[in-house]
Amino acid sequence: MKRNCLLKLLTEKRYLELKELMSEYNSVDLADLLMELEDQELAMVFRMIDKDKAAEVFAYMDDDQQQALLGSFTNQEVGHILDAMYTDDAVDLLEDMPANVVNRLLDQVSKDTRSDINRLLKYPEDSAGSIMTVEYIDVTPQMTVQQVLDKIRRVGIHSETVYTCYVVEKRKLKGIITAEALMTHDGDLLVEELMEEKYVFIRTTDDREEAANLFRKYGLIAIPVVDQEGYIVGIVTFDDAMDVLTEETTEDIHKMAAISSSEDSYLKTSVFGHARQRIMWLLILMFSATVTGAIITKYENAFTAIPLLVSFIPMLMDTGGNCGSQSSTLIIRGLAVDELHFSDFFTIIWKEFRVALVVGAALAMANGLRIYLVYRNFAMAMVIATSLVVTIVIAKLVGCILPILAKQLHMDPAIMASPLITTIVDTCSIVIYFQIATLVFHL
Amino acid sequence: MKRNCLLKLLTEKRYLELKELMSEYNSVDLADLLMELEDQELAMVFRMIDKDKAAEVFAYMDDDQQQALLGSFTNQEVGHILDAMYTDDAVDLLEDMPANVVNRLLDQVSKDTRSDINRLLKYPEDSAGSIMTVEYIDVTPQMTVQQVLDKIRRVGIHSETVYTCYVVEKRKLKGIITAEALMTHDGDLLVEELMEEKYVFIRTTDDREEAANLFRKYGLIAIPVVDQEGYIVGIVTFDDAMDVLTEETTEDIHKMAAISSSEDSYLKTSVFGHARQRIMWLLILMFSATVTGAIITKYENAFTAIPLLVSFIPMLMDTGGNCGSQSSTLIIRGLAVDELHFSDFFTIIWKEFRVALVVGAALAMANGLRIYLVYRNFAMAMVIATSLVVTIVIAKLVGCILPILAKQLHMDPAIMASPLITTIVDTCSIVIYFQIATLVFHL
Repeated sequence: MKRNCLLKLLTEKRYLELKELMSEYNSVDLADLLMELEDQELAMVFRMIDKDKAAEVFAYMDDDQQQALLGSFTNQEVGHILDAMYTDDAVDLLEDMPANVVNRLLDQVSKDTRSDINRLLKYPEDSAGSIMTVEYIDVTPQMTVQQVLDKIRRVGIHSETVYTCYVVEKRKLKGIITAEALMTHDGDLLVEELMEEKYVFIRTTDDREEAANLFRKYGLIAIPVVDQEGYIVGIVTFDDAMDVLTEETTEDIHKMAAISSSEDSYLKTSVFGHARQRIMWLLILMFSATVTGAIITKYENAFTAIPLLVSFIPMLMDTGGNCGSQSSTLIIRGLAVDELHFSDFFTIIWKEFRVALVVGAALAMANGLRIYLVYRNFAMAMVIATSLVVTIVIAKLVGCILPILAKQLHMDPAIMASPLITTIVDTCSIVIYFQIATLVFHL
Repeated sequence: MKRNCLLKLLTEKRYLELKELMSEYNSVDLADLLMELEDQELAMVFRMIDKDKAAEVFAYMDDDQQQALLGSFTNQEVGHILDAMYTDDAVDLLEDMPANVVNRLLDQVSKDTRSDINRLLKYPEDSAGSIMTVEYIDVTPQMTVQQVLDKIRRVGIHSETVYTCYVVEKRKLKGIITAEALMTHDGDLLVEELMEEKYVFIRTTDDREEAANLFRKYGLIAIPVVDQEGYIVGIVTFDDAMDVLTEETTEDIHKMAAISSSEDSYLKTSVFGHARQRIMWLLILMFSATVTGAIITKYENAFTAIPLLVSFIPMLMDTGGNCGSQSSTLIIRGLAVDELHFSDFFTIIWKEFRVALVVGAALAMANGLRIYLVYRNFAMAMVIATSLVVTIVIAKLVGCILPILAKQLHMDPAIMASPLITTIVDTCSIVIYFQIATLVFHL
């Protein structure tokens, strides 16, 4: 079923067939398809989706379409959708709206939903609290397996995941019991006999990226979230964790290319939006690069005497930049996936130093030989070879030290990436190069 | 429990306490802890872990330690561990070993395990088949819910996930039924009444990254894998998918910084290993950069007449490189997370062109003004401003076009990143700059 087919059914008023077709679709795919419709068509078609499925499809749409749909809904319809959505999805939706709209929308939902949503809206944007959902199944230690299964049967359908139940006593989390344990044990066993008392948990105030990393490390489906007093307040599920990992990685990759982060997708961002995300860093880096230029003017006598010197500037600058960004990229990614730590500081520096010597020697030999063969100028070959080795050593050291220091100072290591490293290394490489050249050629 | 505490219990032969302590540990954490031990201590301590848990802990260790342990095991122990491991973990372990060792190890396992492992070993390394497991629960359409629950109780403990059962008739996959459906419905309902006939699946030959992206898109716990005839041959679980996404992203990030991919972690890779991963690209890029140098020598007359021209080279090169890598990074990441497609080609080019004009104008004004104020040289300010705008437009266009073309030509877009783009843009910016300068200054 493509957009055209769907529109055809709509204009020919073959609503029953349309309903039938849509009911066969997966909610994710249906949301994808509806995204291709104009706002007005969308409002019509959306009303034909089964009530139960509608909230799910709605949750998968993008912000613009959600807003458009909300605008066309009656108050009652708004209430129905928000009540049927998982709290974390509803919170995602409301977070980006002006306060007065949020209040108007919240007026339409049930009291319970309203208080849940209000509570979640208070957590900081990057906290585990902001991605958790309050729909989970809590049981007591004294319940039997059969009683838990009965409870799941009763309320399970409304819970984002039924595959882990949380054993709670006086609001404190005592342990967890998996659906696997429930399904593979006798109905009259007690929960306290089967529950796991060692479990992974997160706090509401934990960073959402750290929370997401726990999913990766332990391969869990859901992780309980507790507040400062140890009371359970919600759970985070693996699908939300996967989204967080993807978003955070994208943010890191963008930062590493000197782009300020943005939540909108590439195509949805306007031209000026894109420009705004990129100009600030470009300006900073451009003016930093003029320092390198200013240094070059000091060696005017050198390169007017031997103009050939100028022609090696791009090669030296690029190689230094590339070497530095190789190191910084390896370290930044290693820190992000929790593979490298501050305690590895000296190990890393020592390793990068030796790698730099090996790489530097190889590049210096290759280029030195080339220059000697092309220009028959042994002194120039030596100047370039020596400059290359020193530049590469400095580039690799700067490239590995800055991200680790940034992490230790609670800054984002991702900004210590290619562009900044390149700018710093450029200055160093130019100074080294002309210093060696003036020495060798007595300029 | 830290390493010291563990070693203390070991040397004081307090084995019971040691066993007790280890049994309280999560398998992931225990594997982490054991990784700090020397090979000999490890072999001793490992034997004290509960039989059931041992295979899990073993699966979480890294390659080196697995090899060391295997070396210290008796044939019987090897057989026990491999039989108890999930097939996909066992395959991961065997994949990196020489064929004769693999054969020796496979001699020790049961016939079923051996044939499962042999089958999985045949799938290409980056295919969905290579990350799937053959432990899943299959049911028939005619079974009742109660019969399925009984089957789960019987075999469930050996299945990597019991939360989705696969409805199979004559080896063909007919549908899926979730544990949630089983737990929330009457025991005498038939599977065929409850099963979902529209389900997401993958083929053994699909790329493992594409398979992993399906988990992200649909938020699934497991996806069935079918062969070319539509027979179900295994499942992929979300935890493996998360690992694949992390690995593939790391590989992309490394490629984007001109580092060849490697499966080993930073710290485990030797100095020469690191050097090998980096030298090839550095050599290619270094020699490409000499082209830019050769072009500069053509303008020797220009910069010996006006030496100031040289001092703007680093700024122009850096800015061009940064602008290009911003664009290429946005596009490469957009392609990787399936947000951008070839069909957006012209939309992207048109957008980048306009962004380049806005960014170019801003940077040209800022730098032009600076140069005018510092050097009181209007002509020079104009040369730099114009060169900046043209360079930025070219950089952004090259930066967005190359990754999309690479993708379309079934190459990895990640290699069209910062280093390569920078080298290409450098050459362009130098030519443009000196061309404009010679025109303006009549050189």
